[in-house]
Amino acid sequence: MKKVVKFGGSSLASAKQFKKVGEIIRSDKARRYVVPSAPGKRSKTDEKVTDMLYACYDAASTGASYGKIFSKIKERYEQIIEGLGLNLNLDFEFKKIEENFIAKKGRDYAASRGEYLNGIVMANYLGYEFVDAAEAIFFDDNGNFLADKTDQELSQRLEHIDRAVIPGFYGSKPDGTIKTFSRGGSDVTGSIVAKAIHADIYENWTDVSGFLVTDPRLVENPVPIETITYRELRELAYMGASVLHEDAIFPVRKEGIPINIRNTNKPEDPGTLIVESTCRKPKYVITGIAGKKGFCSINIEKAMMNSEIGFGRKVLDVFEQYGISFEHMPSGIDTMTIFVHQDEFVDYEQSVIAGIHRAVQPDFVDLEADLALIAVVGRGMKSARGTAGRIFSALAHARVNVKMIDQGSSELNIIIGVKNDDFEPAIKAIYDIFITAEI
Amino acid sequence: MKKVVKFGGSSLASAKQFKKVGEIIRSDKARRYVVPSAPGKRSKTDEKVTDMLYACYDAASTGASYGKIFSKIKERYEQIIEGLGLNLNLDFEFKKIEENFIAKKGRDYAASRGEYLNGIVMANYLGYEFVDAAEAIFFDDNGNFLADKTDQELSQRLEHIDRAVIPGFYGSKPDGTIKTFSRGGSDVTGSIVAKAIHADIYENWTDVSGFLVTDPRLVENPVPIETITYRELRELAYMGASVLHEDAIFPVRKEGIPINIRNTNKPEDPGTLIVESTCRKPKYVITGIAGKKGFCSINIEKAMMNSEIGFGRKVLDVFEQYGISFEHMPSGIDTMTIFVHQDEFVDYEQSVIAGIHRAVQPDFVDLEADLALIAVVGRGMKSARGTAGRIFSALAHARVNVKMIDQGSSELNIIIGVKNDDFEPAIKAIYDIFITAEI
Repeated sequence: MKKVVKFGGSSLASAKQFKKVGEIIRSDKARRYVVPSAPGKRSKTDEKVTDMLYACYDAASTGASYGKIFSKIKERYEQIIEGLGLNLNLDFEFKKIEENFIAKKGRDYAASRGEYLNGIVMANYLGYEFVDAAEAIFFDDNGNFLADKTDQELSQRLEHIDRAVIPGFYGSKPDGTIKTFSRGGSDVTGSIVAKAIHADIYENWTDVSGFLVTDPRLVENPVPIETITYRELRELAYMGASVLHEDAIFPVRKEGIPINIRNTNKPEDPGTLIVESTCRKPKYVITGIAGKKGFCSINIEKAMMNSEIGFGRKVLDVFEQYGISFEHMPSGIDTMTIFVHQDEFVDYEQSVIAGIHRAVQPDFVDLEADLALIAVVGRGMKSARGTAGRIFSALAHARVNVKMIDQGSSELNIIIGVKNDDFEPAIKAIYDIFITAEI
Repeated sequence: MKKVVKFGGSSLASAKQFKKVGEIIRSDKARRYVVPSAPGKRSKTDEKVTDMLYACYDAASTGASYGKIFSKIKERYEQIIEGLGLNLNLDFEFKKIEENFIAKKGRDYAASRGEYLNGIVMANYLGYEFVDAAEAIFFDDNGNFLADKTDQELSQRLEHIDRAVIPGFYGSKPDGTIKTFSRGGSDVTGSIVAKAIHADIYENWTDVSGFLVTDPRLVENPVPIETITYRELRELAYMGASVLHEDAIFPVRKEGIPINIRNTNKPEDPGTLIVESTCRKPKYVITGIAGKKGFCSINIEKAMMNSEIGFGRKVLDVFEQYGISFEHMPSGIDTMTIFVHQDEFVDYEQSVIAGIHRAVQPDFVDLEADLALIAVVGRGMKSARGTAGRIFSALAHARVNVKMIDQGSSELNIIIGVKNDDFEPAIKAIYDIFITAEI
């Protein structure tokens, strides 16, 4: 059994958090490959080490004074080392970092040092071997990630290392320059390592007990999702849920390796298991609710439009001419509605309407702005009759006016359009009918 | 106050029916312009005069024996005349008709004689002036109806006639040849006359007390619709409801003249009022339910398709190439479903799928056949929250699996896709929740 365990910034923000992580790793011998982030915030008002590194580099590389912030960064690590009682001194590393900052080795280099240093501390603390990601994760000259080369070399390298710490977030270009993944890129590193060693599971340890059914800013204490498929995850992510970045999912998804989102502060919680597919009956009919504001609908009416071959295509042609992608296109009889992102549409509004008039000679074109789209996602919906009925009864009860309904043959999600103002009450109503009422 | 009254074939099938019509007309002095159809069936096994005329003409014009059927037609009119106790003899008309049949004056001429003769009988019975439609309703050489010329000449002609009978169903070409509207064309004549005289109302008298909320073959004794807008009517007609032909609506709709569908056998019933728009609160939330079987859905899946500009347009392009019109195109996240008529699609099935693969490189394309679409139509739905909830709860309760939901911003109708086998139970369930439960 081989597990890759990735720990987020808040799990490694202090010696106290490091100790929790140490306990988690030592409690399961399969947790052999560790991917740490840089130390995060210890409190709401605290600073992340990565942000301090960017600020320090910007100062040092432009000749401004950087000593104070550099000392603060050093102090963060020293506090952790001291708190853990380690016999470890990072003076050499910090000296080199300072030189490289002045030599303008790049913002990516600067940012990556948070993970790099944390990896050294972690390896020392656990007694695992430290493997610098610069020697194992590769980008091309243009900064594109080299998946095959990385997989091959990382695989070979780790084959003979029983237990290792590989810092997250970065790798190197052919000339040795450090290149980072986009922010949150430690998730990606973890996924790459899991793929390379053919892990049985990729554990992603954070400060929440898994993904929540919906946004906690909209619903108080939403329950976590026990099991979610990659597809459901992508659907929720597309509709605005903050879940894993697509790049962090792709490497393990290809290998069928499940991801387990866990809580460092509550290691007893099972967290969320992300899988390719599963026979497990979901606890609730719906898996998640996500949504976004800021859409606009263009409603086109024309008598007998359904029998006009090419009508829909001509309408979409107009949007395409202005580079506007459409989100949904529900239609009635003699009516067709196009949902677009308001910010993409607003500049071309009048041109698009004129274009539609030229293209299909409608009887009537109408715009409605400030709409929100809500996606109710769940593999359980396919087998549960009455899901749509429950959703729309709950929305009616909450006095939400449903502006649009779109459900295609996939039956894995229903998209609902409401006014921006109805967004929060709508999500709350759907959450309550499927989750609160079932607890 | 000026009313145009059109009577259908069953309202004029016998002397007994003529007497009902006479009473209706005499009970309201505003009923000044009468448009009769030809005598219809007196019983289920009876023949319509129009059908007998076609058969008689086909025999006479090809030199076959036609005497027996010609006598039967003559007898129908003689029975009516005798039953009404009129001093009227149609021997001269019948002699001319016989000559014209042998002279091959055309099937349209033959068919039109049913209305022509009934018009003469009606005028005599009522004491109204007979106006031959051949002298007042005009077509061009190609058989296209000349709306403006007709309106102008008919208007002038009727201006000085206080009370007139104008037979339905036909008019004439420039050379005097008789040309009929499509079957049921007396409705069109009534509408044209109503427009020409600027009628206050166009009464269309039939054998039912108005349009029914749904098809009586699917639901036992559905209630009639009290008031329906032209738009709702067109929507229901599009989705398969047998209501007035579009051509019969257009002339009066343009003038804002309401149509009242009435029952000759139950003149006390208010029937259905068809209006351009109305403030009257509808009795039920929904106005009507109609639907059609025989659709097919093409479900296309592709990760991140929503962000691909031109995706939908390219897909529709493929259908257009094969001359296939689409009915609905609901979409989820990463999925798009196209509903088409199965009979239009089946021959091109594989070509279309291949075309979609070439055009947009989908992850997956899936077909589902034998689907039905149901339209729930009603201007009352816009203001009634919870309509969708009631529909989908009722369908769940009836164990109907909802394959597709489409509701755009018009909020005047919801389109639901179900399996062909679920078509009848679905319509019954929707009828029951909105009508039976409210009676």
